[in-house]
Amino acid sequence: MSRQSNRTTDSKKMNSELFTLTYGALVTQLCKDYENDEEVNKQLDKMGYNIGVRLIEDFLARSSIGRCQDFRETADVIAKVAFKMYLGITPSVTNWSPAGDEFSLILESNPLVDFVELPDNHSTLIYSNLLCGVLRGALEMVQMAVDVKFAQDTLRGDSVTEIRMKFIKRIEENLPAGDE
Amino acid sequence: MSRQSNRTTDSKKMNSELFTLTYGALVTQLCKDYENDEEVNKQLDKMGYNIGVRLIEDFLARSSIGRCQDFRETADVIAKVAFKMYLGITPSVTNWSPAGDEFSLILESNPLVDFVELPDNHSTLIYSNLLCGVLRGALEMVQMAVDVKFAQDTLRGDSVTEIRMKFIKRIEENLPAGDE
Repeated sequence: MSRQSNRTTDSKKMNSELFTLTYGALVTQLCKDYENDEEVNKQLDKMGYNIGVRLIEDFLARSSIGRCQDFRETADVIAKVAFKMYLGITPSVTNWSPAGDEFSLILESNPLVDFVELPDNHSTLIYSNLLCGVLRGALEMVQMAVDVKFAQDTLRGDSVTEIRMKFIKRIEENLPAGDE
Repeated sequence: MSRQSNRTTDSKKMNSELFTLTYGALVTQLCKDYENDEEVNKQLDKMGYNIGVRLIEDFLARSSIGRCQDFRETADVIAKVAFKMYLGITPSVTNWSPAGDEFSLILESNPLVDFVELPDNHSTLIYSNLLCGVLRGALEMVQMAVDVKFAQDTLRGDSVTEIRMKFIKRIEENLPAGDE
């Protein structure tokens, strides 16, 4: 589906439950379509990437945030502005690597999994993996290559959900990026 | 994915854009999976139904709304409470049939289609058909059988989006309903 150019930046605030259940329908469909969890995880990441490269424009328009000075500022903007805006939660930013190139987002609660229990035969499913792709895609559009993955997941029995983000490199401005 | 019993009714208010794009990913995936638009429309309706039968419980808990006296009250609750809660919009209720068993919800804007243009080869796709299923499933759980369909759609060039709802019958209380 392509994007309309005349879209407004009108915002509709909504409760998360319909989104949560719709996301569940997407994951369920992918589990039917692909042979194993690994493929589903990959597909979710890829879909998230394609969403992220579009969502960033909406985010920049809505937040009026300019270029971040460093990865610490990026981390704060992601946690306090972006997560708040699109998921209604504010993760904490912790576990910085000594070099300052890695941190964790700790989600006390994750709206994507509100109605969910993993079936036994999907123990390696990274249910919320779309989020990693969204972050990766969005940051790529502002010239940051990052590695994003789930380090802990309440769905798999961990006490919190932890997304680990690692800065890889700055991307040269004139390389075009697009759908994967 | 099954539902957790210890879920809270904590609400997370979020902007609709991530939902919109995720819904787009779902529709795109279904267009890959199924042969024609008609099958995709059917699948969206079915997914919506399964979402609706779950969402109603959340809705009743969150809204504290009891049994509606008649179909007119149902129409108002759907438009002013349910749509507002889960999509952040308030459709108008119009075009009542003389018998009072049919009405239309007119959506001035539809958050599901904010970023969307239908490709030429999907001219019969009812892109937002999930919503019809959600309404049908949710109402079935409160003992109302209804027929729900899109009568107009801005995606197909109409000036508004119109969902037409027709009351069919009251369902006997002790028939169990569940996933289709």
